[in-house]
Amino acid sequence: MIYLIPDVQLPQPYLLFLGDTTEPGYAKTAFGLRDWAGERCVGEFACEGATVTTGLRSMTPAQAHAAGARAMVIGVANAGGFIPPSWLSALVLAMEAGLDIISGMHARLRDFDVLRETADRLGRRLIDVRQPPAGIPIATGRRRKGQRLLTLGTDCALGKKYTALALTRAFAGRGVDATFRATGQTGILIAGGGIPMDAVVSDFAAGAAEMLTPDADEKHWDVIEGQGSLFHPAYAGVSLALLHGSQPDVIVVCHEPGRERVLGHPGYAVPGIEETIYLALRLGSRTRPNIRCAGVSLNTSKLSESAARKLIAEESSRLGRPVADPMRGGEAFDRLVDACLA
Amino acid sequence: MIYLIPDVQLPQPYLLFLGDTTEPGYAKTAFGLRDWAGERCVGEFACEGATVTTGLRSMTPAQAHAAGARAMVIGVANAGGFIPPSWLSALVLAMEAGLDIISGMHARLRDFDVLRETADRLGRRLIDVRQPPAGIPIATGRRRKGQRLLTLGTDCALGKKYTALALTRAFAGRGVDATFRATGQTGILIAGGGIPMDAVVSDFAAGAAEMLTPDADEKHWDVIEGQGSLFHPAYAGVSLALLHGSQPDVIVVCHEPGRERVLGHPGYAVPGIEETIYLALRLGSRTRPNIRCAGVSLNTSKLSESAARKLIAEESSRLGRPVADPMRGGEAFDRLVDACLA
Repeated sequence: MIYLIPDVQLPQPYLLFLGDTTEPGYAKTAFGLRDWAGERCVGEFACEGATVTTGLRSMTPAQAHAAGARAMVIGVANAGGFIPPSWLSALVLAMEAGLDIISGMHARLRDFDVLRETADRLGRRLIDVRQPPAGIPIATGRRRKGQRLLTLGTDCALGKKYTALALTRAFAGRGVDATFRATGQTGILIAGGGIPMDAVVSDFAAGAAEMLTPDADEKHWDVIEGQGSLFHPAYAGVSLALLHGSQPDVIVVCHEPGRERVLGHPGYAVPGIEETIYLALRLGSRTRPNIRCAGVSLNTSKLSESAARKLIAEESSRLGRPVADPMRGGEAFDRLVDACLA
Repeated sequence: MIYLIPDVQLPQPYLLFLGDTTEPGYAKTAFGLRDWAGERCVGEFACEGATVTTGLRSMTPAQAHAAGARAMVIGVANAGGFIPPSWLSALVLAMEAGLDIISGMHARLRDFDVLRETADRLGRRLIDVRQPPAGIPIATGRRRKGQRLLTLGTDCALGKKYTALALTRAFAGRGVDATFRATGQTGILIAGGGIPMDAVVSDFAAGAAEMLTPDADEKHWDVIEGQGSLFHPAYAGVSLALLHGSQPDVIVVCHEPGRERVLGHPGYAVPGIEETIYLALRLGSRTRPNIRCAGVSLNTSKLSESAARKLIAEESSRLGRPVADPMRGGEAFDRLVDACLA
């Protein structure tokens, strides 16, 4: 693991902070950490009024520190990425208990006087993981050594990160040397490093993707978390920069069956899987001529096991490619992993 | 014209600074100002070792100040937008001669101690036009009123800005209400306003393009300066964000005959004109379904008049579209303008 947040090794393990959240959709950072970095999460802590829970043990910051926690992570990703005043006393309490604070919000921790003063007084660290590293170069387009896989989506927030994490774990399970490369705040907290692609100045976005996936052993795999979608009316540029800069040998296209409209942009239809594969290969071949699509990852979390199994088989037959839901695993996922490594 | 550089009226006229540039392609800011704002340029100044010239009178900063200049503009656009240490003494000299400094580089003038201290001591201004405005929103993808034209290139630095400026002038000459929309530092210096697309944080790049080209009268044309190329290994993401956000009704594809390799990326071939038209229309149709290509702009500055005329006729016949060099004008350019407004 390369730590690309300059001079920062994220202090771990974590206490997950849920704020006063009552909407599970806003706690996806906490859920992501529970699901993928559970061994580094000692428990959860919330303000009064919160109804969302990760299922981890509820504890005070002092109890968490005694249990080994070294940082409290803001596990909330509310709309706007803001830090409401109602959280500040909890964040101060955590610092007084000996914990550093880690945030993936747009708002910067040091911009709050009470947080900055408390941190300076107690010698705690305020770590904003949505801050890209300094010194990102312009992309060179130079071919790098090692194998790379990028997940791409038909939309945002439908499983690109989970798919990349599941593939990394499956690769490692087969004895393949693989590194998950995080490109968003939750992924960075899970991995302990990465680059928040959406916060990089656009001229340097492809360069950031190159920096994130440097030369490696020819048998090593970087498994890169995709961002946005090539069809997204707001974020397609980020997706293309990530595709060009990461130069993937292999792509896996992620889709949520039943999602018809782009999240937050109801005037836009979600594109088809074939159309997404076609465009990703066409655009990606510019910097990686041998790029290929290993298959499709379906997020079937809203379907029953039997309905999911049936749909996966149908889609695999229709598309003529391996199709799986990585969170359900099974033979379908094994075939997708085979195709990635083929 | 909307002035998007907050609270700044650029001090004029300009002295053009060429640094120690030996590659004409990197001096495009100086050339653009000479060609499109020549009445506001008193001369040029370079470091020892520079071989590039605009043809304007070479003068010291003191001579330029005596001739009326009020600012020295960094006329260089190197890859990465950095300010090398070898330029600093020339910039200090200019301030000592009474000139403000205007820069379109990524590097911020105030980040250099010697520049900041000199400016503060002498009361000079350090103006970075590559600073995007505050409050850029995430793109909505909403269709806006008014007509829009975007120039796209097969590479960087081959005529997208010149083509947009020439089309704006030609539209106005036909009594069509048209506004040149600058998206890069040179265009901003020429127009006096605009948004430096490449300096916008990538998540907001398409939103910046929407902000730059707001709702307008249905007969009004925004003529938007393109950036980069959809095939560029470093900048394609910027190009796609600009295409999606500006939602052009019409595109004009710009190309330099004879350029075979991407500027600064010799490992990459310049794509064909047809391939560029195809990809631009396919990608652009996502936010502007009726997008069409009016024709092709060729930069024939390296050809003789007769060779250029012959090539333009051949390419027009081969592509089945209007083809012209806007800088040569003539009937071919009239036909291209007709096709844009059709």
